[in-house]
Order: sequence, then structure tokens, then C-alpha cells
Amino acid sequence: MTGLVEPIVSGDVRAAARLMRDLDDRRPGAVEVLKNLFPHTGRAYVVGITGNPGAGKSTVVDALIERYRAMGKRVGVVAVDPTSPFSGGAILGDRIRMQRHATDPGVFIRSLATRGHLGGLSRSTGDVITVLDAMGFDLILVETVGVGQDEIDIISSAHTAVVVTVPGLGDDIQAIKAGILEIADVFCVNKADRDGVDRTVRDLLHMLELRGAQSARKVEIIKTVALSGQGIDELMGAVARHREANSGESGRARAQARAAAQVSELVKDQLIDAAWRAIRARGGLDVTAEAIVARKMDPYQAADEIVAEVLSSG
Amino acid sequence: MTGLVEPIVSGDVRAAARLMRDLDDRRPGAVEVLKNLFPHTGRAYVVGITGNPGAGKSTVVDALIERYRAMGKRVGVVAVDPTSPFSGGAILGDRIRMQRHATDPGVFIRSLATRGHLGGLSRSTGDVITVLDAMGFDLILVETVGVGQDEIDIISSAHTAVVVTVPGLGDDIQAIKAGILEIADVFCVNKADRDGVDRTVRDLLHMLELRGAQSARKVEIIKTVALSGQGIDELMGAVARHREANSGESGRARAQARAAAQVSELVKDQLIDAAWRAIRARGGLDVTAEAIVARKMDPYQAADEIVAEVLSSG
Repeated sequence: MTGLVEPIVSGDVRAAARLMRDLDDRRPGAVEVLKNLFPHTGRAYVVGITGNPGAGKSTVVDALIERYRAMGKRVGVVAVDPTSPFSGGAILGDRIRMQRHATDPGVFIRSLATRGHLGGLSRSTGDVITVLDAMGFDLILVETVGVGQDEIDIISSAHTAVVVTVPGLGDDIQAIKAGILEIADVFCVNKADRDGVDRTVRDLLHMLELRGAQSARKVEIIKTVALSGQGIDELMGAVARHREANSGESGRARAQARAAAQVSELVKDQLIDAAWRAIRARGGLDVTAEAIVARKMDPYQAADEIVAEVLSSG
Repeated sequence: MTGLVEPIVSGDVRAAARLMRDLDDRRPGAVEVLKNLFPHTGRAYVVGITGNPGAGKSTVVDALIERYRAMGKRVGVVAVDPTSPFSGGAILGDRIRMQRHATDPGVFIRSLATRGHLGGLSRSTGDVITVLDAMGFDLILVETVGVGQDEIDIISSAHTAVVVTVPGLGDDIQAIKAGILEIADVFCVNKADRDGVDRTVRDLLHMLELRGAQSARKVEIIKTVALSGQGIDELMGAVARHREANSGESGRARAQARAAAQVSELVKDQLIDAAWRAIRARGGLDVTAEAIVARKMDPYQAADEIVAEVLSSG
């Protein structure tokens, strides 16, 4: 399987897709390929994009792809879907628009399902970034739909984190979730042709002031109407300025934080895999769950047993 | 520490708070208390409440507390905060309203931070529910702010899952996230005095039809203005009807799913704790991260080493 390394580094899309499938299937040897790709990474610039559901993140990503392509940049996209096993992602209509780039060899789009309970559904974002980076993409856009802790981790480990919001969510300060404010390097107020845009910008400025985030580092607020392309150049300018400002020591610290986060994620994935193996080895959790509901066993005892099995599997 | 069992079962708030603190601090013996509390559980009815940021979930919870109290029910509340280490939750202004119940001995409110990277910040929701259930609370309201996978798991394991949404998020179908639709037993369209409420209800009905969810089981849609209390009785009625409809075999299946989810969560927590111990034992991740950024080590190798340490710790 290490035969995949060379074609992937030369940008071979089919080899990359094959590796990602093998990673999804947990095929032995797939991680070995990642190890061999790793020395070829570190060149791509990763932009994380998150924000309120309904803020139009996919439209912003679509507009960014178009402009970066026009500049001759090759663009990889990782879209993290919070789809359930039921919906299969079909609900995410905005994704359809992005598909028009599917035939452009300078664009590679990969969707990832988020993990289900105890994880295990999807390969990690970090792995896909490793592959795209090794393939020589100049820019990697990582879009997450939603704002759970996992997604905050993903976005905050990007080189530049863009948080997309939208006017009209009312004066409810919860609309911008705690935790999101701190990770934003650039705010994008999309659908800026709507009423209330100035108020949204003012609220963001006010919150940035309250946190002193503005004194610590410059967070730009850019108004866009992604559907018509309005403001996208300004958004790219803000990303470029943030990149410039972080090329030195602070960029290095962030790269280390990113590496540490990736290691943590890999460790978590492997341990969760090990837990699933132990659970499958005991024939699943059905019998255990029945005994718990009948109050014949307690969940703490059951968990202790499974953990003991996992830890003795090494 | 097992001396805490008896006072907690008698409803002693200070003993319960002490146990929760001990659980947070991972004090040895705290889990032993949970094991001993477990036979006293299974009586409380758990209502999960989630939905869009800004939909007014906390206001709905506040209104529910008031009405259930008026009926003489004792109410426990678990609020899961996605607060960052920076914000400490202070941004969540709506929570302040709930505090007016703090002096009512029939109400117990507990906030939980969500886990940070690799988890470990907070005790699990399941543990808190065990304690509140053993204390004899009739109803336990679990509110999660946001809609990540962890929170979907929490809410879908409740007896009744209420999904709160709000008019005016536009026609963007992403506003109701995939995954949320399937777990809703009751939809609450809050701020129903706003424009667009009928459209929101129509959209929900349409989506339920598309999924065939309505044919499989009845999902009620209730309009509320939680701030004024409007519609809250109807919401409680819908919860009661769902409870009634699930008292038989389907309720039993759900109880087992809940037990299995709790075991999975406990296993995950313990393995993540073990990972942290292994990482601390090697002096943290700083040196590793530096080596990775310098491309002297790859993250896959580093993760393999840590996992090997965890698995040999058993």
C-alpha cells in the first residue's frame, strides 16, 4: 500500500481517494501511508470555517473556492457533516452548489461524517488534511457545520479560523456561542444585505472589546453576501493579513498546538476503536443494557469491566 | 464516602453537591457512591431539551420548572454548557433567569461544562442524572446548548426529547440540523409571536413527512412564547402524551438504548482519563509537538506510542 505515497505526492486524485477509503475502512497499512506522506506536508495553508447553522458557510466556501481558483491556487475542501445515520447528508442542500467545482482538477472536495456515539464512523479531519497537504494543495478549507467542542477543536487548529454569522438572529447573545468568540481570527457577517447587519457588527465589536480580544490581537469583521460574491475579496484580504501577522513566533506556537491536538485526536480515535473491539468481543451491549434496566447490574460496573478488557488487550 | 449514599437518597442537597464535587475532582470512592445509588434510580422522568442557539431553550426550561413546581413536582435541571475555559459561562445571560429557582428546595440546578480536547473537564451528564434520580426528583430537565454529536447523544437518551426552534432563521433548511430531526419527540417552536411562525411549523411538518417520521411515530409541534408562559401547558401536555405512548415495549427498548449509551460514555471517559495520565507521564505533549512541527517525528508515530503506554497501563 506504500505504493500510494508517490502518486499522492504527485497529486493523483484517484490514489488519494483510494487511501481515504482505506482509512475509512481501517485497512491495515493505511496509516503507514500517512506516516510516509507526513514529511511531504507543512506547505498548505489551512483555513477553518464555522458558525451558526444557516449562516451560509457552504456558500462562503463556494465563493472562496472560485476566487482562489481564479488566482491560480489549488484548493482542497474538507466538509465535516453532522449527518445522522438516517439522513445521509441529503438535507444539506447548500453542498450541491459546491459540486460545480467537482470537475475542476484544481479542486478536491471531501465530506466527512462526524463520529457517532463512541466515534468510529469517519476518519479524522487531520488525516484528510495530511493527504491534501501532501498532494500539494495550496489552500485547504475546512468547513464544519455547527459548533460542538470537536468542531471548535478542528477550527481552532486551522492556520486562520473564520467564524461566519448572519444578521437577524436577534439580540440573543447566545447566538454567538461562547467558545466561538475566542477562536475567531476573522468574523464574516454573511447575508449582509439583510436588515440588522450593522447591529450584528456592533454586537461583535462590543463582545470583542469585553473580552479584550481586540487588544491581544486584531480580529477583523468582514461583511459579505456570499451568494453574489460581495465582500469575498475583502474576506480573503483579512485571511491574508492574519496569515502575514502570524508568520513568526505566534504562528509557530499555533503549529505546535495544532500538532498536539492532532496527536490527541489520534490517541482518542485509537482508544475508541479499542473500546469497540472489546464491546464487540463481548457480543455487544444488549445483554448488559437489559441487566442494567432490570437493575441487576449497574453501568459503572459494566464500564469497569469493558475498560479492564481494553487495557488488558495491549 | 459511601456514607453519602443514605443522605443523598433522602434528598440531602449538600451531600449531593459534595458527591458531584468529588466526581469532578475524580476522587477515589466517588464512583463507588454512584454504584450504591444506582439501585435507587429509575423513577425520575428525564426530558431532554436542545435546539438552535438563540432559540430560548433556557427560557423554556425556566417556564417548565415554574409549571411543574406549581403541580407539586420536584425538578432537577442539568444544563450542559459549551463554555470555553476563557468565558466560564458568564456569557449565558439566560441562565441568570433560572437562578430565581435557586432558593426553592424543590429545584436543583447543576451546570456542566462540556469536555475540552480529549475531554476530562466535566463529569458526565449520566452521573448527574443518577444522583438527581436517586435524590427522588420527579422530573429531570437536561438542557444542552448546541447540537454537537455528544449533545445529540445526551438528548436522544432522555425519555422525551424536546427540540426547540424559532421562526426567522430564514428558509435555510440547514437551520434544523440533520440528526436533530430524528431525535425530536416533540418540537417546540418558541418565540411564536414572531413573524414567520406558521412557515416554520409548515417546514417542520414537511420535513417530518419527507422522513416518514410521522408515520412511524407521532411528533407533536407546539408553539410557545416561553417568556410569557404562553404554550407551556401545551408543551407539557405533549411531553405527557409522549410519555404515555412510550410506557410499554418501545419505552423499554429506549431504556436499554439509554443504558448502553451510558456505559459507552463511561468507557470513553475512563479511556480518555487513562490517555491523559499517559500524556502527563511523558511530560505533556510540548516536546512531541515541537518534534512534529520540525518534521522530526510524525503524529501517527507519537499517537502509537501513547496508545501503547495506555494499553500497557492495565
